[in-house]
Amino acid sequence: MAHVLDSIEIAKRLDSHDISLWLPDGSNYPGTQSIRKRIDWLTEALRTIHSRLRPDQRLLIEYKPFEPAFYHTDIADWGMSSQLARDAGPQARVLVDTGHHYASQNIEQIVAWLLHTGLIGGFHFNDRRYADDDLTLGSIDPYQIFRIFHELLAATSENLLNEVAFMIDQSHNLKGKIEASVQTIMTAQELWLKAALLDRDQLADLQQSCDLVAAEELFRGAFWRDVRPLLQAWREARSLPTDPLAALRESGYVERISRERGSRSSAVSSYA
Amino acid sequence: MAHVLDSIEIAKRLDSHDISLWLPDGSNYPGTQSIRKRIDWLTEALRTIHSRLRPDQRLLIEYKPFEPAFYHTDIADWGMSSQLARDAGPQARVLVDTGHHYASQNIEQIVAWLLHTGLIGGFHFNDRRYADDDLTLGSIDPYQIFRIFHELLAATSENLLNEVAFMIDQSHNLKGKIEASVQTIMTAQELWLKAALLDRDQLADLQQSCDLVAAEELFRGAFWRDVRPLLQAWREARSLPTDPLAALRESGYVERISRERGSRSSAVSSYA
Amino acid sequence: MAHVLDSIEIAKRLDSHDISLWLPDGSNYPGTQSIRKRIDWLTEALRTIHSRLRPDQRLLIEYKPFEPAFYHTDIADWGMSSQLARDAGPQARVLVDTGHHYASQNIEQIVAWLLHTGLIGGFHFNDRRYADDDLTLGSIDPYQIFRIFHELLAATSENLLNEVAFMIDQSHNLKGKIEASVQTIMTAQELWLKAALLDRDQLADLQQSCDLVAAEELFRGAFWRDVRPLLQAWREARSLPTDPLAALRESGYVERISRERGSRSSAVSSYA
Amino acid sequence: MAHVLDSIEIAKRLDSHDISLWLPDGSNYPGTQSIRKRIDWLTEALRTIHSRLRPDQRLLIEYKPFEPAFYHTDIADWGMSSQLARDAGPQARVLVDTGHHYASQNIEQIVAWLLHTGLIGGFHFNDRRYADDDLTLGSIDPYQIFRIFHELLAATSENLLNEVAFMIDQSHNLKGKIEASVQTIMTAQELWLKAALLDRDQLADLQQSCDLVAAEELFRGAFWRDVRPLLQAWREARSLPTDPLAALRESGYVERISRERGSRSSAVSSYA
Repeated sequence: MAHVLDSIEIAKRLDSHDISLWLPDGSNYPGTQSIRKRIDWLTEALRTIHSRLRPDQRLLIEYKPFEPAFYHTDIADWGMSSQLARDAGPQARVLVDTGHHYASQNIEQIVAWLLHTGLIGGFHFNDRRYADDDLTLGSIDPYQIFRIFHELLAATSENLLNEVAFMIDQSHNLKGKIEASVQTIMTAQELWLKAALLDRDQLADLQQSCDLVAAEELFRGAFWRDVRPLLQAWREARSLPTDPLAALRESGYVERISRERGSRSSAVSSYA
Repeated sequence: MAHVLDSIEIAKRLDSHDISLWLPDGSNYPGTQSIRKRIDWLTEALRTIHSRLRPDQRLLIEYKPFEPAFYHTDIADWGMSSQLARDAGPQARVLVDTGHHYASQNIEQIVAWLLHTGLIGGFHFNDRRYADDDLTLGSIDPYQIFRIFHELLAATSENLLNEVAFMIDQSHNLKGKIEASVQTIMTAQELWLKAALLDRDQLADLQQSCDLVAAEELFRGAFWRDVRPLLQAWREARSLPTDPLAALRESGYVERISRERGSRSSAVSSYA
Repeated sequence: MAHVLDSIEIAKRLDSHDISLWLPDGSNYPGTQSIRKRIDWLTEALRTIHSRLRPDQRLLIEYKPFEPAFYHTDIADWGMSSQLARDAGPQARVLVDTGHHYASQNIEQIVAWLLHTGLIGGFHFNDRRYADDDLTLGSIDPYQIFRIFHELLAATSENLLNEVAFMIDQSHNLKGKIEASVQTIMTAQELWLKAALLDRDQLADLQQSCDLVAAEELFRGAFWRDVRPLLQAWREARSLPTDPLAALRESGYVERISRERGSRSSAVSSYA
Repeated sequence: MAHVLDSIEIAKRLDSHDISLWLPDGSNYPGTQSIRKRIDWLTEALRTIHSRLRPDQRLLIEYKPFEPAFYHTDIADWGMSSQLARDAGPQARVLVDTGHHYASQNIEQIVAWLLHTGLIGGFHFNDRRYADDDLTLGSIDPYQIFRIFHELLAATSENLLNEVAFMIDQSHNLKGKIEASVQTIMTAQELWLKAALLDRDQLADLQQSCDLVAAEELFRGAFWRDVRPLLQAWREARSLPTDPLAALRESGYVERISRERGSRSSAVSSYA
């Protein structure tokens, strides 16, 4: 509690808008904690936290199904985040980390539900194959990100998308951090543009008439469109480097700050 | 809609209390339906359905993450069921089928949340290894059922468990149906009794003091207790067969009704 | 055994090359069968079956981790198929059904191993989100199919790919069967062409020098290339319809054969 | 290579029998490495390693499907370990870590196959709910461990189990390390004894006659037997503490060595 309340105070001084909350808490073994009592405690704590927010601040409640709590994580899915947000107060919202789901879970459907309830607060973007791998966006399943963007764009055109915070939450051990961020932003631009160029009116007609193959082909036709030339033209028109990755490499920026900041601290972790 | 409304009418005539609703609906391919529009349609339909209930009837809304809709199932998890129940009206509840979860999902935690929100309506009991296998209760992971029963018993002792419908939803292709039902009921009795004999006051103390190994050992000590002699004594005291499976076999009942009802219809399904 | 031996005889008369074997066998409940004895029986049976093959025939052994056997399926993964193929004889190979894997399993890696051991025999192509959904190819995760094709093409250029049978194994309940087949073949052509146009020599250099971001961008750059115009030109040059789905629709073929063959038989299945 | 060869030399001096190998190697992103070339390199390296073994030493090759390599791990499953062991030489075996499997994978079936091929080399015992959680044995799914022990005991009675190394590979952040080890060993004793007391001759008869419910009830009847009194008597007969966990607590051993060894080094890890 003290840590979160401190964070709110710091955010006020920095004029920061969103307080993002991810709790690793839970239990590692069956029977060692009362799952239900912890729900009560958490609900009460989040109400207190919410009462300290400035009117223009928001509390974003993230969920994660596993790790580092191994048996039960207190806020494990979007349903738990939603209930806690509702109980905390009107400035609380749900934060979706794309890597925090069960294998095969339909993330764009969860996004659609959070748009429906008005509880969507923001995203932590990344990708993963198995667990919470924190890989660069779209590197494993780009079609899924395209589908999430489609839900957001559809909501935008209906004026349902008031305020959604787009954040990157990744952790890199082989890729350079800045290089990975540039990759992620370029991929986000490409997938967002593919989804933006989809003819949503025609799609709605085909969906309504249950012309399912035509709807699917229109939908994934947008995914197959190569938008890289369009983005290069967009960058050229703004005097931006057309190939941001090449520009980063040629700039020598990473080498320079690496030298200046000294040897990076090495992270050691054990997985055996 | 017509089918559900007919069911409500039939239930009224039969003085049946619970209308249980499982929807296979959804879509098989991305882009072929509007996930969000379908939420609106479903919400509206369930409100209408709820308005036809008699005051003592309940609407139980089941969820299932996959199959037979392959890309998105309209009611995929407890969060969706909960939101629909809240929007439908005060007599709507959530129905938990133990087989309708993602691999590794913590079902007892979901039960704890549904107890917390008061939305728990009932159970479809079965077991499974991978998908919705509809196996006999506790045949694959008996410890999980014990943990679910513990959540229910803890709520009972706090008078939180008003009304929960316990149902069996299984489908057998190798086991005899009646034999499987007897197995399921015997297993339910054993696991329920193990959980009932747990000293929940002592557990609460150990949990509160974070004495986690002692709490765990007390908790699973109850699971390891062999309650079969207690149940045999309980049956004897009621002049019931001490070994219900043997009694069924010796009775010749299955053979008799099989003869009487003619050859069973054979179900053919394809999985290749 | 009798069924398989009959199939081999029929195949000989039809001059059919590949005997494809998928076994639903296994057990539904722990303890009900000896897993290890069944391995011995199966090994012996496949040796007998192999001894009846004509020298130019092959035995393709498919694997599947679950369904319809719920607890253990005799041939559950590529390791079991490989061992059985080795024990059966030199004309036995492994058949990979893309839908027959655990969630998140790396299928292209399995393909690479089967190329390494020389045991790859063929594919059943489809796609899925959760279980063995038998959806049209590339409809859920097209990037995965691209990666599988890349492994096959890399092996081809090294003359490692002697003989691989490409088959479609899908089951449609909402899409028309012929329409779905046309979609699958078009998707296969597009993803294969994307993978074929990848500069594999340059990729090898970048991989060798561990230039991982450049290697990744080259690799997925090929995936992002829109090859549909190339395929249209290829079809035009062969006087084929440029849009096969539209051509099928305009031809009226499906309606005609549907009329001729009478009302389709309706499949009824239960999933509740 | 240098590290493994050093380890073999150290093992020789310590008269240590088993060289256990777990490789975190692989790649994080599609296209960044050649999966197939790495198989060749690994095969070659393991042959060299094997050639340095003393005749009485063994090389145990562990597999793990994911983490810390996120896209592909070079040795991902028992099939890959088996092929590498076969190619390395006659003293190579497969090491099974119970936590290194896909969700819902049937581990006892893999054990049965490794017994069939004679490649089983040993175990790393632990438990988990989702990923490689390294929890105490049997804490999440005790029935699974019972089934694995049954496979081992069945092989013992057929003299198939020559040499299997039983190891504990766990990592604790909330439980005390020694307390967790005592819990694991007690659980292993209980589950092993339950499996040992199963009447395997009767089970074989029931399995052979496909009397599946009777076979299942016999099998899990052994699991339900409360063997704790037997183990207490066994300890008493050897003048061992009947309750090892209580004996550890009362001994003050953990507090004493903690004082002596100073404050434990704190491990910091990030999961957000």
